[in-house]
Amino acid sequence: QIDQPRLLSRISALGEVGAIDGGGVCRLALTDADRDGRDLVVCWMKELGLAVSVDGIGNVVGVRAGREDLAPVMTGSHIDTVRTGGRYDGNLGVLAGLEVIASLNDAHIVTKRPLAVAFFTNEEGARFAPDMMGSQVYQGDLALEHALDTVGIDGTSVRENLQRIGYAGEAPVGNNHVHAFVELHVEQGPVLEHEGITIGAVTGVQGIHWTELTVEGVSNHAGTTPMALRHDAGFVAMRIAAFAREVAAEMGKGQLATVGQINLTPNLINVIPNRAVFTLDLRNTDADALKKAVDKVFAFAFQVAEEEGVKLTHRPLADFDPVAFDERIVARVESLAKEQGHSVRRMPSGAGHDAQMLARMCPAGMIFVPSVAGLSHNVKEFTHAVDIGAGANLLLSLMTELAEQ
Amino acid sequence: QIDQPRLLSRISALGEVGAIDGGGVCRLALTDADRDGRDLVVCWMKELGLAVSVDGIGNVVGVRAGREDLAPVMTGSHIDTVRTGGRYDGNLGVLAGLEVIASLNDAHIVTKRPLAVAFFTNEEGARFAPDMMGSQVYQGDLALEHALDTVGIDGTSVRENLQRIGYAGEAPVGNNHVHAFVELHVEQGPVLEHEGITIGAVTGVQGIHWTELTVEGVSNHAGTTPMALRHDAGFVAMRIAAFAREVAAEMGKGQLATVGQINLTPNLINVIPNRAVFTLDLRNTDADALKKAVDKVFAFAFQVAEEEGVKLTHRPLADFDPVAFDERIVARVESLAKEQGHSVRRMPSGAGHDAQMLARMCPAGMIFVPSVAGLSHNVKEFTHAVDIGAGANLLLSLMTELAEQ
Ligand SMILES: NC(=O)NCCC(=O)O
Ligand SMILES: NC(=O)NCCC(=O)O
Repeated sequence: QIDQPRLLSRISALGEVGAIDGGGVCRLALTDADRDGRDLVVCWMKELGLAVSVDGIGNVVGVRAGREDLAPVMTGSHIDTVRTGGRYDGNLGVLAGLEVIASLNDAHIVTKRPLAVAFFTNEEGARFAPDMMGSQVYQGDLALEHALDTVGIDGTSVRENLQRIGYAGEAPVGNNHVHAFVELHVEQGPVLEHEGITIGAVTGVQGIHWTELTVEGVSNHAGTTPMALRHDAGFVAMRIAAFAREVAAEMGKGQLATVGQINLTPNLINVIPNRAVFTLDLRNTDADALKKAVDKVFAFAFQVAEEEGVKLTHRPLADFDPVAFDERIVARVESLAKEQGHSVRRMPSGAGHDAQMLARMCPAGMIFVPSVAGLSHNVKEFTHAVDIGAGANLLLSLMTELAEQ
Repeated sequence: QIDQPRLLSRISALGEVGAIDGGGVCRLALTDADRDGRDLVVCWMKELGLAVSVDGIGNVVGVRAGREDLAPVMTGSHIDTVRTGGRYDGNLGVLAGLEVIASLNDAHIVTKRPLAVAFFTNEEGARFAPDMMGSQVYQGDLALEHALDTVGIDGTSVRENLQRIGYAGEAPVGNNHVHAFVELHVEQGPVLEHEGITIGAVTGVQGIHWTELTVEGVSNHAGTTPMALRHDAGFVAMRIAAFAREVAAEMGKGQLATVGQINLTPNLINVIPNRAVFTLDLRNTDADALKKAVDKVFAFAFQVAEEEGVKLTHRPLADFDPVAFDERIVARVESLAKEQGHSVRRMPSGAGHDAQMLARMCPAGMIFVPSVAGLSHNVKEFTHAVDIGAGANLLLSLMTELAEQ
C-alpha cells in the first residue's frame, strides 16, 4: 500500500516550482523552472536511495537494485509542462514512481529485478518539437545529435539549454535494456469522469501528426490594396486553420484538429501580413484516417496558397503512428483494477506519452486516472486524491509483479 | 521651382533614422527612433527659419511668417511609420513642405499669409489606435487627455512615451485656425502606376472601421479533447478572420477587409487556445456599404462564438466616416497638374490621412504621386524621383496661390 498523503505532498511541493496564477505551473522544458523541478526530484531520488544517472538528452533515471542484476522494470513520465499547465500531467507518473519506491523501502521489500523511475526530457513538445523527445532518444529512434540541434520557439537550441541548466549528462542513450515499462498518468480528457470509472487500462496511443506551416506573402497597406491584388499570408494561414477544423467535423469518428499557435509578421492592424507561421496538430486512432486528414488539409492549403499567390512551405515536427500497448500489460491493468475493487475500462490515449516510445523497446502499458472536467494543459487541471491513490496502488502492484518475472 | 536633389537628400537622410533591412524604416510612433526622426526634422525646420512649436500630443508645427498676420496655409503629414514601413509614407509630405519653404527662402518670396509645415503624432495607428491621432487632437474632435491615456500594443501609454522622448509640448490644441490644408502623399496603392498617371487629385478618404476583438475560451489538450467539447478561442478568431474576407469578396465594389494582427494564448502547438485577440480593419468609400460589412462580420462573429461556447468582446479602435475634400482644392490640384504638363485623375484615398482630420476645420485636399508596384507598409515602398518632383512643385504652386487669398 502506498502512502497517499506523502505522494500528495510531493505533488504539491513540485507544483510550487514554476507555479502560476490559478493553481497552474509553467515549467517549459529546459527552462530555469524546469531545472529547479529537476533538482527537487533528483534530491528525492537520492533520499530514497536510488542510483541516479543523467543521459545526453537530460533524461534522469533512478535505479533501485533488485535481488538479481537483470533489466529493470521501469516507470516514469515527465516533469516539463506547457506554458499554462497543471500539476498532474507527467508529474503524477514520476512522483507515483517515487512513492512505489518509498513504499517498498518502508516495507523492506526487495524485488527480483531492479526497479527504475525515470523522467524524460521535453515530453510536452511545447517548447521544442517533437514531443516525447527524451524518451525517443532514450529508446534510440531519434538520434541524440539531431535532438540536441533542435531549435525551440524562442530561437535557442536544446543543446545550449541543457548545458545552461546543467543536465547534459554522460549516461549512454539508444542502447538501454528495460524489462517492462508502465506509466501512470492523468487521462487529460473527459471519458473516465463522464462514465464514472476510476481506472483506464490504456490500449494504445492515437497517431499524432504535427507540422509547422509558413506562408510568405507580400506586406501592403490594408486601405489601399484591392482585395484581388493581395498576397495576404495571414488570411491564408487563418483560412487553412478554419479548414482543418472543417475536416475534423466532416470526418468525425475521433478525428482531431488543432491550430494552437500562429505568429504574423509584422502583426499590425493596418498592414497585410507578409508572413504567417502556424502549427497544425492532427490526431486519429486510425492511421489511414489520419493520413487522409493530413492529405485533405495539405491539398486545401496548397490550393488556397496558389489562389492567393503566396508561398507555402512546411516542416514536419512529429509524425507518430498509432501505438498498441502490450496486451498482457493492458489485461493485467484491467484485472488488477478489478481485484482492487475499482471500475475500469479499456481506452486509447489521446495525448502522446513517453510509454509510446518505450513500447518500441519493451512491453509497455499505461494506467489512467480521471481528470476533473476533462481539463489538461490548463491551470485548473485536477485529479481527486482518491483516484491518485487508486492509480498509485495499482502501479505498485503491477511493478512488483513484473519485477518478479 | 523646388530643388529636387535637395528634397531627395532629405528623404534619404530621414530614411536612415530607424532604417531596417530591405531599404525600409521602423519608426513606430513615440519610440526612440521616432524621437530621432523628430529631432532631425525640427533641426531642419529651424535651419529654414521656421518658428517651431510642439503641442500637448507632440504635433510639431513650423511657421513661416507672411506679409500679414492671418491664418496660415498649412501642409504636412507624419513621420511615424509601421514596423516594416517605407521611406515615403508621410515623410514625403513633411519634407516636401520643408522644400516648399526652402525654395521660397531661396527666391526671397514672402507670401501674404503665413505658411506652416506640420508633422502630426501617430498617424499610422500601428502602435496606438486610432490612426490620425495627432491631427484629430489638433483639430479638436479627439480630447487630448483621452488620447494621452491610450495604451499601445506594448502596454505603455501615449503620455509616458511622449514624456520619455521629450515631445510633450505646451502649444494649445483644439482651437487652431488654418486657412487651408494641402498634403502631398504617395498613393500607396496601384492605380496611378497602373494607368500611367503622374498626379492624383484626391477627392476624399474612404470610411475606416477598426475594432479589436477578444475571444475567451477554455485551454485544453489538443489530443484528448473531443471536437464537440472544445471552446477554442483561436479557432473562433481565425474563422471570423476568414469570414471577413468572404464578406469583402461577396460585397465587392471596393469593400476591403484585413485581419493584420492576432495573438493567441498560450500560443503552443498542443494547447487549445483559451484567448485570442485580433484586429479587424474594414473600409469602404460608401458609408452604408461599410456599415453593412461591419454588421455582417459582427453577426457572424457572435454566432460562431455562441456555437463554440466562447465569450466574444470588442473594443472600438477607430470609426471614421468617408470624407470629401474641398471641391475647389480638388479642382485646383487637377487644373494645376494639367498646367504643369502632368497627367492627372481624380481618385479617393484608400489610406487614412491627416488631411481628413484637417478637413473638419478648413478647406483641405491632397496630392497623390504614384507608388511603384502599389506597395506601401512594405520596406520596398518606392516612388520615382520625377514623380516626387512633380508632386512637390504642384504643392509649391498650390500653397503660394492659397497663401495670397
Ligand atoms: N501527455 C501530454 O500532454 N503529452 C504532450 C504531448 C501531446 O501533445 O500529446
Ligand atoms: N497613410 C497611411 O498609411 N495611414 C495609416 C492609416 C491607415 O491605416 O490608413
